[in-house]
Amino acid sequence: MFKNLFFKNKGPISISLIGKVCNFASNTKDNNSKISDVKNLADSTIRDITFFNSAKYREQASLTKAKFCITTKNLIKYLPNSCTPILVDNVLLSLSQVTKLFYPTSITDNFNNHLKVVKKSVIKKNNLQVGKNVLVGKNISIGKNSFIGYNTIIEDNVIIGKNCSIGSNVILRNSIVKNNVHILDGCIIGKKGFGFFPNNGENIRYAHIGCVLINENCEIGAGSTIDRGSLSNTIIGRNTFLDNQVHIAHNVKIGENCMIAGQVGIAGSSIIGNNVMIGGQAGISGHLIIGNNVQIGGGSGVIKNIPDNAKVIGYPATEIKNFLKEMRNKND
Amino acid sequence: MFKNLFFKNKGPISISLIGKVCNFASNTKDNNSKISDVKNLADSTIRDITFFNSAKYREQASLTKAKFCITTKNLIKYLPNSCTPILVDNVLLSLSQVTKLFYPTSITDNFNNHLKVVKKSVIKKNNLQVGKNVLVGKNISIGKNSFIGYNTIIEDNVIIGKNCSIGSNVILRNSIVKNNVHILDGCIIGKKGFGFFPNNGENIRYAHIGCVLINENCEIGAGSTIDRGSLSNTIIGRNTFLDNQVHIAHNVKIGENCMIAGQVGIAGSSIIGNNVMIGGQAGISGHLIIGNNVQIGGGSGVIKNIPDNAKVIGYPATEIKNFLKEMRNKND
Amino acid sequence: MFKNLFFKNKGPISISLIGKVCNFASNTKDNNSKISDVKNLADSTIRDITFFNSAKYREQASLTKAKFCITTKNLIKYLPNSCTPILVDNVLLSLSQVTKLFYPTSITDNFNNHLKVVKKSVIKKNNLQVGKNVLVGKNISIGKNSFIGYNTIIEDNVIIGKNCSIGSNVILRNSIVKNNVHILDGCIIGKKGFGFFPNNGENIRYAHIGCVLINENCEIGAGSTIDRGSLSNTIIGRNTFLDNQVHIAHNVKIGENCMIAGQVGIAGSSIIGNNVMIGGQAGISGHLIIGNNVQIGGGSGVIKNIPDNAKVIGYPATEIKNFLKEMRNKND
Repeated sequence: MFKNLFFKNKGPISISLIGKVCNFASNTKDNNSKISDVKNLADSTIRDITFFNSAKYREQASLTKAKFCITTKNLIKYLPNSCTPILVDNVLLSLSQVTKLFYPTSITDNFNNHLKVVKKSVIKKNNLQVGKNVLVGKNISIGKNSFIGYNTIIEDNVIIGKNCSIGSNVILRNSIVKNNVHILDGCIIGKKGFGFFPNNGENIRYAHIGCVLINENCEIGAGSTIDRGSLSNTIIGRNTFLDNQVHIAHNVKIGENCMIAGQVGIAGSSIIGNNVMIGGQAGISGHLIIGNNVQIGGGSGVIKNIPDNAKVIGYPATEIKNFLKEMRNKND
Repeated sequence: MFKNLFFKNKGPISISLIGKVCNFASNTKDNNSKISDVKNLADSTIRDITFFNSAKYREQASLTKAKFCITTKNLIKYLPNSCTPILVDNVLLSLSQVTKLFYPTSITDNFNNHLKVVKKSVIKKNNLQVGKNVLVGKNISIGKNSFIGYNTIIEDNVIIGKNCSIGSNVILRNSIVKNNVHILDGCIIGKKGFGFFPNNGENIRYAHIGCVLINENCEIGAGSTIDRGSLSNTIIGRNTFLDNQVHIAHNVKIGENCMIAGQVGIAGSSIIGNNVMIGGQAGISGHLIIGNNVQIGGGSGVIKNIPDNAKVIGYPATEIKNFLKEMRNKND
Repeated sequence: MFKNLFFKNKGPISISLIGKVCNFASNTKDNNSKISDVKNLADSTIRDITFFNSAKYREQASLTKAKFCITTKNLIKYLPNSCTPILVDNVLLSLSQVTKLFYPTSITDNFNNHLKVVKKSVIKKNNLQVGKNVLVGKNISIGKNSFIGYNTIIEDNVIIGKNCSIGSNVILRNSIVKNNVHILDGCIIGKKGFGFFPNNGENIRYAHIGCVLINENCEIGAGSTIDRGSLSNTIIGRNTFLDNQVHIAHNVKIGENCMIAGQVGIAGSSIIGNNVMIGGQAGISGHLIIGNNVQIGGGSGVIKNIPDNAKVIGYPATEIKNFLKEMRNKND
């Protein structure tokens, strides 16, 4: 995982300070250990703290390289000896506090009120076509021969590749857009995801320190929303096309050459393979794995994993041959 | 119900003038009665005119304090003696005419072409952070320490509380936003609802004189639309969070601590309790009552009332245990 | 079909040049024939080239007046003798190449970076009400007494009728809007449709040379998207009302007096009759024919043609009486 371009890491932070701020029981002897970052089970190194809140992830847990892991009593057994468990009542709440400590600006989308109209020198140098009232933040990059429509907002550190076409009224933040990508009018890309915990009658927002990565040759339809990831990134694979009014939630990874029709919604953390076709208005629940070459009928509701090459339809989505059989039975 | 901040009431108006404009049969002796306002059955006082068009509302009708009630012959029996019925052919059409008489500007969203960039003195005084090209109408109020993104439009009389965060490209009209509310980019809040009658080959629009009231600590996701009420208000309860691309129709009341995922739609006049969780892309039909602590699965279609504490899923949404049984039967 | 106002036709072009650019087998003796345009089977004249890719359209094929037709071996038999078939491997791919040859600017939405603020003289002459930062292209027309909100973008050649109300943050291109139409805030109308072919690991975009035609007295709800047609136009019939967040794909034709509730999606090339009512979140698949006076329940998924006067509901949508029977059976 590359360096975080969008959120400044306040680490390293000592585990004792982390414990103090986040009300951990001080059940570790390593009070002076310096922790570099907070990461997923899979991405963590020996300098990081991670979290583990469901037996569903026990395989990743058993392989984690993290020095510390926020978890609960019944999950300790899955962790390797190299990883010191930190027992808490509510893993996600504690994770939220730790992430906020490392990345204090990631909880709410901090408002950059210093955006300015793109400089003419940049436009000329890169042979850009830029509409009126386009506002850009600090340290952004727009590749040669790209188009940016009217009233579009590009916040700090965003990277846009060559030969891209960004429409009008688009809002781009915490995003990396590769070459030859078309983002159509009215898209809102890179905002924080819909993640929070109810706690004592208030909702506590998750930190979202990931970005949105849109790979080469993609098209994102008008009025679509793509939220950035919480700890990992939200990723759209090369050559994948989204139609209008699609919603892609935080942490979703979509493969290459996918075709996603209008008003589809993909809930948080689901992973979609390559060459997947999703019909209009279909919905995919969170934390699912959809294989390669899958076809999902329009209007379907997918609530479990789908293996490679399957064609599914209905609610809940089922193999199309079962669906057709069921339809015939109904009509008997 | 508080004074209407957004639409000027032309009342009091004599019942004889109301009858003349709206082609009522003059079946009342009280021709000189002055009527103050047009209201719901429940909200009316002895100075108001109301309407009653379905036996479904017979209980409210029997308790109404209104002086006059627009209704049909077969419903008269439910009205108290204190309320004089006014018989019409089409209750909703006549209601529309009466409302237009009291509130002539409420039929189509009147365009305020006098909006101006926020004054620097207001920004400084209230410690606001305001982006470029934010346009505001007359008599608006923005509480201390609030943020307003770029290109956002805030029309006449809108009230925004303290510590709020309003995104970019947001349009706010006929709305009251309490403290600590987050309204994300691209939301359109307070427009008139989708209400009209076909009449002689034209569609006649309903008057919408209600507002949108968003209570403390709410979050409204990017690209969401919340329409204002017709005679009552559209209300989002304290601490309720909406994800992206949600649509809330006119007159809907949502309780406290609700969690409403992406692309959900709630049709007109439905009432949602407290602590309700609604999964992505679920739809709720109009004029329903959803109890407290209800959980509605993603993609469900709710077409009847749901009691407290129920967990429902499917189309039409049914208790989750029935849904699972049905799934098992299918797979036998 | 009227002259294309939005895309310049580079024809006439000789069939030999067309064949060279598009890699046709030169199986015609008419190498010097000049072709005026590329059109549908039904719209073609003796000077045009057309295409025919499915036996589903054999009736239209048998009646076509086109001089040439891009097609495949097994479909030749349906064409009249007056029409010379041009055999290709992939009809849609070749069509795309031919259309691009005639209309080179229609593949990607060409960005008009010359848009300017509306002239005061135009506003005064036509008694318009126009908000700040409204940008318009060349050769546009706005009828008398119309309203245009803030930040709205109206691209080259767009025609807007009299007494129209166009909201704020609207984007209108390749569109003809008749009198007395209301287009609410945030709509994106006239962009190219979601049409492309996977080819050698890239997606090739279809040409979209049609427009969006919105007839008298329509209302288009906030945040809706209506894509322009590929070879024909996308049409909204007189007096039809769309609610918020509706998506209408390319080539769709909707009749008169229809009522389409929030978040409905209609996929490409479907035809909807007159007086059709579609409940919220319903979806209609592509290439279907929905009759007159049809009622489609909220949340339904329509995947086959619906005859006149039917009332359907469910997924897949079925006659409401069957749906109710099935519900009763489930509850037994």
